[in-house]
This record gives sequence, C-alpha cells and structure tokens, in this order.
Amino acid sequence: MINNTAIDSALFVKMALSAWQGYNDRFLKLLESVTAEQLALQVAPNRNTGVYLIGHLVSVSDGMRPLLGIGDRLYPQLVSTFETNPDNPDTPKPSVEELRKYLHDINQSMSEAFGSMEPEAWFERHNAVSAEDFAKEPHRNKLNIIINRTNHLSYHLGQLIFLKR
Amino acid sequence: MINNTAIDSALFVKMALSAWQGYNDRFLKLLESVTAEQLALQVAPNRNTGVYLIGHLVSVSDGMRPLLGIGDRLYPQLVSTFETNPDNPDTPKPSVEELRKYLHDINQSMSEAFGSMEPEAWFERHNAVSAEDFAKEPHRNKLNIIINRTNHLSYHLGQLIFLKR
Repeated sequence: MINNTAIDSALFVKMALSAWQGYNDRFLKLLESVTAEQLALQVAPNRNTGVYLIGHLVSVSDGMRPLLGIGDRLYPQLVSTFETNPDNPDTPKPSVEELRKYLHDINQSMSEAFGSMEPEAWFERHNAVSAEDFAKEPHRNKLNIIINRTNHLSYHLGQLIFLKR
Repeated sequence: MINNTAIDSALFVKMALSAWQGYNDRFLKLLESVTAEQLALQVAPNRNTGVYLIGHLVSVSDGMRPLLGIGDRLYPQLVSTFETNPDNPDTPKPSVEELRKYLHDINQSMSEAFGSMEPEAWFERHNAVSAEDFAKEPHRNKLNIIINRTNHLSYHLGQLIFLKR
C-alpha cells in the first residue's frame, strides 16, 4: 500500500511536469519557426504583438524561480515591460534572439532544479502563500504552480500560433 | 505515512479538477458575454469562427465521457462538424443556444460522475489505451485526460477571447 501510493505520488508529478514540458517544447518550436518580422506584428487586430507575448511568457517563467524556491529571477528587468505594463510600441524591448537566450537560461535552470527535487517536495507550499494560508489550502503547493503556468502558457500559445501564415 | 500519501492522492485529483473547473467557468462566462453575431465572426483574419471553436470545445468535452468510462457521447453528431472536419461555412451548425445547452448537459453529467469517483479511480487507464500499453505507460490514466483537456481548453480560450471588443 505504501509502495502503491509512493508510485502514484511520483507519477502525478511526472504527469504535471510532462504537460509543462510538452507545451514548453511547442513554445520553443514556434519561436524557431517565426521570423523577427512576424513577431513584430500583432497576433490579431488591436491585440498584443508576438514580441510582447513572448516576453510575457519568458518573464512569467522567470517568476517561477522565486515561487518554487529555486532562486531569484534571472531577468528581473523584464517584469516592467512584459508583466506590469501593457504592450507599448514606445517601450524598448529585447530582441527575439535575446528573449530566446533568456528562455533557454530560465528553462535550463528549472530543469536542473526539478531533476533534484523529490516528489514530496512538490507538495510543499510555494513562496507566494503564507504558512497559515497553506495549512488551510494545501493545494497551493509548488506542483499547482506548474499546472497553472502550463495552462497560462497554452492560453497564449493559442494566440501566438496566429502569427504563422 | 499511509495517511499522508492518501491525502496527497486526493489533493492532486483536486488540483487537476480545480484547474479544469476554473477554465470551464471562464469558458461559460465567455459564452454568456458574447453575442451570436460576434460568435459568427472569425477570431482573427482567416482563422476559425467563434461558433466553430465553441462547437469544437463542446464536442471534445463530450468525447471525454467515453474516454473516462462515463458513457457514450451525448451528442455524437458534433464530431464530423467540429472535430474531424475543418471550419466550413457551408456546413449547417447548431445555434449558440443549442451548443450552450449541450455543454450544460455534458458538464453536468461529468460533474456527477466525478463526484462519485474515488481518488484512486483517476489513476486507472483511460479507454483509448490498451491494458498492455498502460502497464508500460501508467501516466496514461484518467486524470491525465483532465490535465491535457484543460490545456486544450485554455489554448482555444486564448483565441476565443479575441471576439470580445
């Protein structure tokens, strides 16, 4: 019985991480298959540009590092441009090459950290919830961040795909 | 120890179902806040219409019933129009009111079935994987369907939101 439930625990960590990895792979593939000119366009009339959505996803991924206790953000300068403010053509933005490099660094640092985490560590609280609240709401754990961020990523991936002609 | 892992198992089911429920609620809210005229439009130039994407999501939800062993599809006539064929203006489609009713029926039948499932039942194989393959790939279980379908729903929700002006 203990054996069975231990397998389940590792299994559902694997399920959530596989989904995250799968959508990240799709994101990386998309990034490689669109030109800088396409990314400068709005994904639909009067909607965000491709560059903004990509910077947004990169910055949100970077924000998972402190949430999951991996470390500080690697690129905190992205927050103002891509998270707290809406898309603005007058705001200087990193190039697509720079954003690709940032994403690579962030993903690599997270893969390394994930590889050394025991399944149980995923059920500890994440760093945006207090110990008091976590006692009442144990679903606000680190694995839930993965599940929510995968949905956030797929939401915007559905929009970014419109850049492809 | 047994107690702890048993809690984890129920907790993980709750995490996955909460995410599914959350995106379904957003989908229902969107359906209530757009007009039939808006839904007849393409979500972006040369992309699917709102009605097609909604029919697609309703039909895919209906397909979860046999996959999860709940029962047959309630509305099998949707598959050809919204799953196996691309958006076609010449294909007669159900009205938005009809699609809303279908979605309501499907969601209600699934909520009832989910409410009577023990956490362990979610880790059984789903009906699109053979017993042999499941022995090698135990992540292809019923809960994985929920995780994948939530991501599929959020992907298209990111597109449907463009109908809102």
